[in-house]
Amino acid sequence: MDDAMETGNLAPYQERPRTFPDMRSKPSIPLIFRILMRMNVRLLFVLLFLGFGAIFYIGASTSPIIVFVFSICIISFVISIYLTNWVLAKDEGPPEMVQISDAIRDGAEGFFKTQYGSISKMALLLALVIFGIYMFRSTTPQQESSGLGRLTSASITVISFLLGAVCSGMAGYVGMWVSVRANVRVSSAARRSAREALQIAVRAGGFSALVVVGMAVIGVAILYATFYVWLGVDSPGSMKVTDLPLLLVGYGFGASFVALFAQLGGGIYTKAADVGADLVGKVEQGIPEDDPRNPAVIADLVGDNVGDCAARGADLFESIAAEIISAMILGGTMAQRCKIEDPSGFILFPLVIHSFDLVISSVGMFSIRGTRDPGVIGVMEDPMTILQKGYSVTIILAVVTFGLSTRWMLYTEQAPSAWLNFALCGLVGIMTAYIFVWITQYYTDYKHEPVRKLALSSSTGHGTNIIAGISLGLESTALPVLVISVSIVSAFWLGQTSGLVDEVGNPTGGLFGTAVATMGMLSTAAYVLTMDMFGPIADNAGGIVEMSQQPESVREITDVLDAAGNTTKATTKGFAIGSAALASFLLFSAYMDEVASFAHTPFTQVDIAIPEVFVGGLLGSMLIFLFSAWACAAVGRTAQEVVNEVRRQFTERPGIMDFKDKPDYGRCVAIVASASLREMIKPGALAIISPIFIGILFRILGYYTGHPLLGAKVVASMLMFATVSGILMALFFNTAGGAWDNAKKYIETGVLGGKGSDSHKAAVTGDTVGDPFKDTAGPSLHVLIKMLATITLVMAPVFL
Amino acid sequence: MDDAMETGNLAPYQERPRTFPDMRSKPSIPLIFRILMRMNVRLLFVLLFLGFGAIFYIGASTSPIIVFVFSICIISFVISIYLTNWVLAKDEGPPEMVQISDAIRDGAEGFFKTQYGSISKMALLLALVIFGIYMFRSTTPQQESSGLGRLTSASITVISFLLGAVCSGMAGYVGMWVSVRANVRVSSAARRSAREALQIAVRAGGFSALVVVGMAVIGVAILYATFYVWLGVDSPGSMKVTDLPLLLVGYGFGASFVALFAQLGGGIYTKAADVGADLVGKVEQGIPEDDPRNPAVIADLVGDNVGDCAARGADLFESIAAEIISAMILGGTMAQRCKIEDPSGFILFPLVIHSFDLVISSVGMFSIRGTRDPGVIGVMEDPMTILQKGYSVTIILAVVTFGLSTRWMLYTEQAPSAWLNFALCGLVGIMTAYIFVWITQYYTDYKHEPVRKLALSSSTGHGTNIIAGISLGLESTALPVLVISVSIVSAFWLGQTSGLVDEVGNPTGGLFGTAVATMGMLSTAAYVLTMDMFGPIADNAGGIVEMSQQPESVREITDVLDAAGNTTKATTKGFAIGSAALASFLLFSAYMDEVASFAHTPFTQVDIAIPEVFVGGLLGSMLIFLFSAWACAAVGRTAQEVVNEVRRQFTERPGIMDFKDKPDYGRCVAIVASASLREMIKPGALAIISPIFIGILFRILGYYTGHPLLGAKVVASMLMFATVSGILMALFFNTAGGAWDNAKKYIETGVLGGKGSDSHKAAVTGDTVGDPFKDTAGPSLHVLIKMLATITLVMAPVFL
Repeated sequence: MDDAMETGNLAPYQERPRTFPDMRSKPSIPLIFRILMRMNVRLLFVLLFLGFGAIFYIGASTSPIIVFVFSICIISFVISIYLTNWVLAKDEGPPEMVQISDAIRDGAEGFFKTQYGSISKMALLLALVIFGIYMFRSTTPQQESSGLGRLTSASITVISFLLGAVCSGMAGYVGMWVSVRANVRVSSAARRSAREALQIAVRAGGFSALVVVGMAVIGVAILYATFYVWLGVDSPGSMKVTDLPLLLVGYGFGASFVALFAQLGGGIYTKAADVGADLVGKVEQGIPEDDPRNPAVIADLVGDNVGDCAARGADLFESIAAEIISAMILGGTMAQRCKIEDPSGFILFPLVIHSFDLVISSVGMFSIRGTRDPGVIGVMEDPMTILQKGYSVTIILAVVTFGLSTRWMLYTEQAPSAWLNFALCGLVGIMTAYIFVWITQYYTDYKHEPVRKLALSSSTGHGTNIIAGISLGLESTALPVLVISVSIVSAFWLGQTSGLVDEVGNPTGGLFGTAVATMGMLSTAAYVLTMDMFGPIADNAGGIVEMSQQPESVREITDVLDAAGNTTKATTKGFAIGSAALASFLLFSAYMDEVASFAHTPFTQVDIAIPEVFVGGLLGSMLIFLFSAWACAAVGRTAQEVVNEVRRQFTERPGIMDFKDKPDYGRCVAIVASASLREMIKPGALAIISPIFIGILFRILGYYTGHPLLGAKVVASMLMFATVSGILMALFFNTAGGAWDNAKKYIETGVLGGKGSDSHKAAVTGDTVGDPFKDTAGPSLHVLIKMLATITLVMAPVFL
Repeated sequence: MDDAMETGNLAPYQERPRTFPDMRSKPSIPLIFRILMRMNVRLLFVLLFLGFGAIFYIGASTSPIIVFVFSICIISFVISIYLTNWVLAKDEGPPEMVQISDAIRDGAEGFFKTQYGSISKMALLLALVIFGIYMFRSTTPQQESSGLGRLTSASITVISFLLGAVCSGMAGYVGMWVSVRANVRVSSAARRSAREALQIAVRAGGFSALVVVGMAVIGVAILYATFYVWLGVDSPGSMKVTDLPLLLVGYGFGASFVALFAQLGGGIYTKAADVGADLVGKVEQGIPEDDPRNPAVIADLVGDNVGDCAARGADLFESIAAEIISAMILGGTMAQRCKIEDPSGFILFPLVIHSFDLVISSVGMFSIRGTRDPGVIGVMEDPMTILQKGYSVTIILAVVTFGLSTRWMLYTEQAPSAWLNFALCGLVGIMTAYIFVWITQYYTDYKHEPVRKLALSSSTGHGTNIIAGISLGLESTALPVLVISVSIVSAFWLGQTSGLVDEVGNPTGGLFGTAVATMGMLSTAAYVLTMDMFGPIADNAGGIVEMSQQPESVREITDVLDAAGNTTKATTKGFAIGSAALASFLLFSAYMDEVASFAHTPFTQVDIAIPEVFVGGLLGSMLIFLFSAWACAAVGRTAQEVVNEVRRQFTERPGIMDFKDKPDYGRCVAIVASASLREMIKPGALAIISPIFIGILFRILGYYTGHPLLGAKVVASMLMFATVSGILMALFFNTAGGAWDNAKKYIETGVLGGKGSDSHKAAVTGDTVGDPFKDTAGPSLHVLIKMLATITLVMAPVFL
C-alpha cells in the first residue's frame, strides 16, 4: 500500500491539470523502525517475547501491582494495534485525495524529523550538563547510608531524563503518525457515511491516546521496577522504597523538555501557516479556506498534524508522567511519616489509576459505534452528543474504578476510613474536570451568551471585537480559578481528616489528598485525549475534502465534525491547565522535600515577605509574560514571511487563481518549517535557562549576604508565581482564542450579515489574533508550567 | 470675564451657522466655594490667617520639622496661585474657541459633580462600616496601655479616611479645574507662538502638580501634628511617637478609595467617548479627528479632562500619600527596634523629601521660559527636548537635596554612616525612575525599533498588527521588572548594611532602605505630574483648534505639543507603576507589623507552601485579570452605545455632514456620563469587597480547621500575588496602548502608505484596542494595587 502511494499516480484530476510537487526527499522512517523492518518477523517476535519476559520478571520481583500495571498496558497496546489495523484497513478514497494526503504526510514527517533532530541534540547536551551537576553535587545522608553514590545517582537521573525524552518524542510521533494516515480515510468515509467518518476519527484518536497514556504508565513502571531491583531496595542497608520515586523526576523532566519544544515548534508552525494562508487567501484574495489555489494550504494542513496532534500527544504524555511521579513522591513521603507498614500501595496507586484509565477509556471509545447509522448522508446525530455520551460512560466507570482502587490500594489499618476520604478526593478531581469542561464550553461555544456578545461586538468594528475578546478571555479566568481553589482546599482538607497521622499525631494526608484529586482529574485522560486528537484529524479531513473538490454534501459532514473538534480541542486545553495547576502544586511540594533532604535542614516555608523572595516571584511572573510575548511574536513574524511568499507567488504566477498554474506548496512548507525551528529556540531557551540562572545568582547573593538557602527559596517563589501567572495567562489565551474562532463561525451561520459582511471581517480579525493565542502561547504555557516544576526539581542541587 | 463667557455670543462663526447647545443646567460650583465666595474678603483673610495660625501652632508644638514642612507647602500654594493667575491672565482667543471651551468645561464639571456625588455616598457608607469594625475590634497591648480606646481609635481612622477622601477629591477637582481653563488659552496662544503655548500648558500643569503634591504632604503633616497633640504623644503613659504613623493609614485608604473610582469612571468616560467617536467618525465616515460634525467630539474632549487630568491627579496624590505613610510606619518601626533616641527624623523624613520635591520641581518648571522664542510660528524646538531639559534640572537638584535631607534627618550616632547608605538608596530610586522613563520611551516612541516593527506589522493586516502589539506589550514588562528587582534588592542591601542594628545586633535597616528608594523615585513627582498634565491640556487645545477650524499652521503646533504629551503621559504611567510596586511592598510590610501587633504573636512569614495561602495568591492574581476584564468590557459596551447614538444622529440628520444641521453634542455627553457612572461600580465593588470577603472566609475556615491567622495569611498572599500580576498587567496595558497609538502616528507621518492606506486602517484598529488598555485598565490597575494594600491594612482587624 505504501509503495503504491510513493509511486502515486500524479495524473491530472478533476479536469484541471495540477500535480503536487514531490516533497519527499528521502524516506523519513526513523532508523530504529528501519532496522526492525529489515529483521525476520519470527526473530522479532522472539525478541519481543524475551523483552516482555524480562520486564515481567523484573516486575514480578518488585510487586504484584507492577505486574498488573504491565499487563494492562500491554493489553492496551494490543487494543491500539487492533485500532490501527481497523483504521488502516479503511479505503483511502480516490487518487486525488491520496495525493493531497501524501503531500501532508511528507510535510509533517519531514518537519517532525528535523524538529526532533534539533530537540535530540539539545536533550543530549542537557543530559551531559545534568550528569556533570550530579557528579559534583552533595548527597543526602540517606543516600550515603544506602550506598547510592554520585555516579549511580547521576546515571539514574540521566537515564530517566533520556528515557522520558525518548518516550515523549515517541508519543508525539505516534500522534502524528496516525493522524496523517487517518485524515484521508475520514475524508473518504465522509463520502459514504457521517457516522463512519466520525468513528474512524475517534478510533484513530483512540489509538494514539492509548499509546500515549500507556507509554507514560509503563515507562514509569519499568523505571521503578528496574531501579528497585538494581538498587536492591528495601533489603537491609539499601535505600527505602519510599525514597525511590524521587529518583524518577528525571523522567518527568525529560518528558516536559521535549514537550516544550514540540509544542513551541509545532504551535508556531501550525499558526504561522494558518494565519499566513488566511491573511492572503481569505482576506486579500477572497478564496475559501483550504482552497487548492492557496500556496500555503498544504503547510496549513501539515501544521494541524505537527502542532495539534504531535504536540498535544507530548503535552498530555508529560502531564500524566509528571503527575504520576509527583503523586508517587508524596505518597512515599506520607507513608514514611505515618510509618505505614507496606507503603507500596500509596506509592503505586497512581500507576493503578492510570492503568484503569486505559481500560475505561477503551470502553468509552468502543461505546461509539457505527452500526446505528443507516449510511444515509445528511441524517446524522450531532457528533458532539455522541462524543459526550462516550465521555459520560467513561466518567461513570471512572467513579467506580476509582472507588475500587482506593479501597484496594489505600486501605491501611492505621486509618481504616482513610481510603474513603481519598476516594472522595478522587471524586473532587473528577468533578473538577467535568466542571472545567463545562466552563470552557460556556465561554467558547456559540450556544451561550459570551460568544454571542462577542459576535455582536464585531458589528461595531475590528477594534470593539478585539476589546470584547480580550475582556472575555480575561474574565473567563475567574470561574476556573475558583473551581481549582475549591478543589485544592477541599481535597487537602479531606486528606488532612483521613485519619493518617505522623508520629506526634499531626494529620499528614493533606497533600496526598490533593494528589489524589489530581489523579481523579486525569483519570479519564485517555478518553479526553481521544476527543482532542479527533479535532485535528477531522480538520485535516475537511481540508482534503475541500482541496480535492468533493461535493458540498461531503464538505458539510466534515464541517460538522470539524466544529465538534474545535469544541473538544478547547475543552482539552481547559483540562490540561487544570491538571497542570494541580500537578505543579504537587511538584512544588516535592521540590521542598528534595531541598530539605539535600540541605540537611527543614525547608517547609517560602516566605514572600523577604525582598529577594518577592523579587523571585516578580521574575517568575515576568518570565510567563516574556515567554508568551516571544511565542506570539514568533507566530507573527513567521506569518509575515508566509504572507510575503504567498503574495509573491500570486504576483509571479497569475495563472494560479484560474487553476492554470500550480502553486509551489513546497516552498511555503519549507519556509514555515525552517522559521518555526528557528523561532522555537528563543522562548524555549528562556524557559530552561532562567530558573537555573536565577537560582545560581541568588545562591551566590545569599552566600555573600549570609542568607542560607536563598537560591532555593527564590526559585521556589519564582515557580509558584510563574505557575499562578501561567495558569491565568493560559486560560486567557485559550479561551479568548476559542471564543474568537467560534464568534466567527457563529457569524458564518448567517447572523449579523453572515459571510462577507463587515461584521464577518471584524470577526476574522479576531480569529487571526486568537490563532497564536489558543494554539501556540496557551498550550506552550501548560507545558512551560510543568517544565519549570520538573527542572527546579532536577536542578535543586545547584541552588544550594 | 466669566460672565462674558456665560452669556457668550452664539452667533455663526466661519460662515457656517452652528451653535453649541447650552448644556449648563445649573452652576456647578461646589457648595463650599459658593459659601466662601459670598463672604467678605477681609473676613476670609482673617479666617485663613487664623486657620494657618492654628496649624502652625500645633505644628510648632510637635516638631520644628513639621513647621518647615508647613512653610514649604504654603509657599508652594502661593506659587501655585501665582501660576493660576498667570495662566488665567492669558487671552481666551476668539469667541468660537470660547464657545467650545465652555461646552467642554460644562461637560467636565457636570460629570465631575455627579461622579463625586456617587463616590461621596460610597465613601460615607464605607466610613460607617470602618467605624463599626473599629468599635468591635480588639486593641493592641500598647494601645491599651496608652489609653487609646476603641472610640478614639475608630474616630481617628474614620477622620483620616474622610480627610484622605476629601483631599483626593480636591486633587482631582483642581487638576480638572485648571485644565478646562488652560486648554482654550493654549489654543489661543498657539496662534501666536509655539513656545508660549507650551509654557501655558506647562504652567497650568505645574499649578495642579504643586497643589496635588502639596496637599498630600500637608494633609499627612496636619493629621500627624493633630494626633500628636491630641493624644499627648511621648508624654509619660501615652503612646509612643513610633506608633503614631500607623494611625494614619486611613488617610491613604481614603485617598486610594476615591482615586480608584475617579480613575475607573474617568477612564471609562474618556475612552468610551474616544473609541465611539473614532469608530463612526474616522473609520465609517472618514472625517478627521475632533471634527465639529462628529456628535461625540465634545464628549471626547470632556473625557480628556475627567479621565486624564482629574484621575491622574487623584492617582499621584494617592501614590504620594500612601508612600509617605508607609515610609513613616517603617521608619518608626525601625527607629523603635534600634532604640534611636530621637526617632522623629526617621518618621518625618518622607515629609521633608516631598517638601523639597515641591521646591525643586518649581525650579524645574520655571526653567522652561518663553522668552527665547522670537514668536515666529513654525520655528520651534522639539517640546520634548524642552521638557526633558527641565526634568534634568529637577533630577540634578533632587540628587543634591536628597543627600542634604538624609544628612539632616537620618544622621544618628548609633550608626554614623547610615545616612550615606540611605542617600545611596535614594540615588537608586532616582535612577530607577530615570531608567523607567527611558524604557517606556524605548517601547512607545516611534524613534525606536519596537514601534517601527509594530507599524510594519500593520502592513500585513489588522490581525498581525494586534498580535504584534500584544507581544510588544507583554515583552515590555521584562526590563521594568528587572529594574524594579535590582532596585528592591540593592536598596534593601544598602539598608541592611547601614549599620543600624536591633538589640541583639541583627541589621534592621533593609526595609527602610527600600522605602528610601521609593522616596527617591517619587522625589521629582511634582515635575513628572506637571509633564503628565501637560498632555491632556495640549490634546484638548488641539481639539479646540480643530473644531474652531483654525489655519493648518496652528494645528501643526498643537499637534507637536500633543505628540510630546503622548510620550509624557506614557512615561508618567511607567513612573506610577514603579512607585506603586515599591509602595505596595512597603505597605505589605506595614500590614504584617499591624497583624502581628493585633494578634499578639509574631507574624513575619507568608508561606505559600500552605494550600490555602497558595489559593489566596491564585485568587489575588485572578482578581487582577477579572478587574481588567470588567474595565475593558465597560469601555467596549459604553463605546457601542456611543457608536449607535452617533450613527443614529448621522442617519436622522443627514444635514450634519454638510454643516447644515448641528449635531446634538449634549446627548453624547449625557450617554457617556451616565454609562461610565454605571460601569465604574462593578469593577470598583469587586476590588473593595473581594479582599474583605476572602479574608473573612478564610478566617472562618481557619477557625474550624484549627489554623490561626489563616485569614490574615491568605490576604497577605492575595495582596502579593495581586501586586505582582497587577504590575505586569499594568505595564502590558500601558505600553501596548502607547505603542499602538504611536505606531498609528508613525504611519500618519507618511511611511507605509500614510493616512488612508490599508496599513493605516490596521494601525487605527490597534489604536482603538489600545485606548481602553492605556487609559482605563492600565491606570486603574496602578490605583487598584495601592488600594488593595491600604484596604488590607485598614481592615486587618477583621481578618484575625
